[in-house]
Amino acid sequence: MSQNQSVISVDLGGTNLRLGAVDSQGQVRHFQKLSSKSRGTEILEQLVEAIREVEENLKKEGEEILGIALGVPGIVDLKEGVVYQSPHFPDWKQVPIRRYFEGKFSYPLFLDNDAHLIARGEAWKGVAQEIRNFILLTLGTGVGGAIVWEGRLLSGDSGFAGEFGHMVIESEGVSCPCGSRGCFEMYVSATGILHHLEKGGRIDSNEKMTVEKLHESALNGDIAAHAAFQRMGSFLGIGIASLVNITGIQTVVLGGGVSRAWDFFIEPAKKEIVRRTYSETASRILLKRAILGDEAGLLGGGAVFFQKS
Amino acid sequence: MSQNQSVISVDLGGTNLRLGAVDSQGQVRHFQKLSSKSRGTEILEQLVEAIREVEENLKKEGEEILGIALGVPGIVDLKEGVVYQSPHFPDWKQVPIRRYFEGKFSYPLFLDNDAHLIARGEAWKGVAQEIRNFILLTLGTGVGGAIVWEGRLLSGDSGFAGEFGHMVIESEGVSCPCGSRGCFEMYVSATGILHHLEKGGRIDSNEKMTVEKLHESALNGDIAAHAAFQRMGSFLGIGIASLVNITGIQTVVLGGGVSRAWDFFIEPAKKEIVRRTYSETASRILLKRAILGDEAGLLGGGAVFFQKS
Repeated sequence: MSQNQSVISVDLGGTNLRLGAVDSQGQVRHFQKLSSKSRGTEILEQLVEAIREVEENLKKEGEEILGIALGVPGIVDLKEGVVYQSPHFPDWKQVPIRRYFEGKFSYPLFLDNDAHLIARGEAWKGVAQEIRNFILLTLGTGVGGAIVWEGRLLSGDSGFAGEFGHMVIESEGVSCPCGSRGCFEMYVSATGILHHLEKGGRIDSNEKMTVEKLHESALNGDIAAHAAFQRMGSFLGIGIASLVNITGIQTVVLGGGVSRAWDFFIEPAKKEIVRRTYSETASRILLKRAILGDEAGLLGGGAVFFQKS
Repeated sequence: MSQNQSVISVDLGGTNLRLGAVDSQGQVRHFQKLSSKSRGTEILEQLVEAIREVEENLKKEGEEILGIALGVPGIVDLKEGVVYQSPHFPDWKQVPIRRYFEGKFSYPLFLDNDAHLIARGEAWKGVAQEIRNFILLTLGTGVGGAIVWEGRLLSGDSGFAGEFGHMVIESEGVSCPCGSRGCFEMYVSATGILHHLEKGGRIDSNEKMTVEKLHESALNGDIAAHAAFQRMGSFLGIGIASLVNITGIQTVVLGGGVSRAWDFFIEPAKKEIVRRTYSETASRILLKRAILGDEAGLLGGGAVFFQKS
């Protein structure tokens, strides 16, 4: 009997580190969700340690390890294997991540932007199966994205595509840590939603508010929390309308932690989409919820090795 | 000796109607530039008459006519051959243009969005030869666009891609005839530039001002004209930065009548691009001027029939 094969898949998010082993059927095992110990490159050491643990488990089980897939937020040069800039890890500048991993492991490394891996995961085992053209938006600490056209990820010139978070929706709007102003991310991400509430004095910055808590408040009937998601929804609709006008792609998949508040933001989003796209387009737009949650990025790593396109 | 082959190519712009015959070498003959007699569907009759003239000329010369290529501004469903909406022809609603042409001519009709044909033209015989990935922006009466990735035009789900003019850059900015607000087009197209000057009382709406005249004034040292292009350039840079962040494509080709004022808008555009893209990206962005002018769309029609990709 031939040996079972697995991929070690890692999703390095803005807040959490997720990893596990993915098999050819899309089963995730040895799943771990850790909070990032640092915002510097020391997190790579934490990562190597966690990977070693999964590796040992797989070896005990007699699995063949095909490779490691690693999703990183930010500007990732796929050809060079270098992370140039990562908004959530401000100390990361030109980190030669492929070289680092090649010194530690003998498996092939597939490096990609984190949102791109989530798109691959949803296309392989999630809500976007059989969908040839779609846009994916991850609404988390920041906003990530991917464009899939005819079943392929649009990578752009160096793999830098899908930075939807830095599409400008207010030419001189809210300052963004990236140096620009009015970035989409500052209106629809967790960071953006909380920033707006803080600025308006609605929450105390010491209060350790989170979007999860805000969502709970909205569920309990809190009007201010409800309004915060309504506002976010309107801006989300504006951004989605622009993306549809630009790409002509009419299926939009929304994932990330903030998307759990779906019921509170989706109606205002739809209203702006209808207002800002041609009527022929608007009637064809499908908004879908990503369904793979924490496993999406990991499955995307699996898809790279296992999926026949 | 085998017969020479030609394509009859038509570019229906917001203001002008251009047509001619294109041969396999990319030579344009029997070129005509007419002003549109109407904004209704009657323009189609004018079009048929003009095509018949080119057809007769080609027949006299013994040319074989391979087909007709027609570029139309607006929302064109390539599969159905229907123009759904065209911002510059407000009476056009669901015009079954393919059926109309098939009743008049026996040649195959290739229908596309006008900016898409311009991109095909620049890729075949213009500034984008050998460039596998580029974004094209036409700055004319409105703003059109195209995304070319790995040598292929991104068409989206129904051919509606590239409506860059309706990317929102100010969530509640200037009203756009499309029904939205803050559309990119209202800041960087001829319409947008003149609208802003009128609103500011700098030009009289009866004055029949044009961007050509404004450009001349700028060349003659007129400070207000200069400022108008500076303002337009800043907004152009904002839109380009968003497009680069979204697509990861780093070569941007600018065409259309307004692009003749290049020297007056390009520096403020670059400044905004640098401010609003990651430094790794910004340093790689190339801004290029389209070089085919009035013939670009016609050559794009030729490319469809003659270009081996």
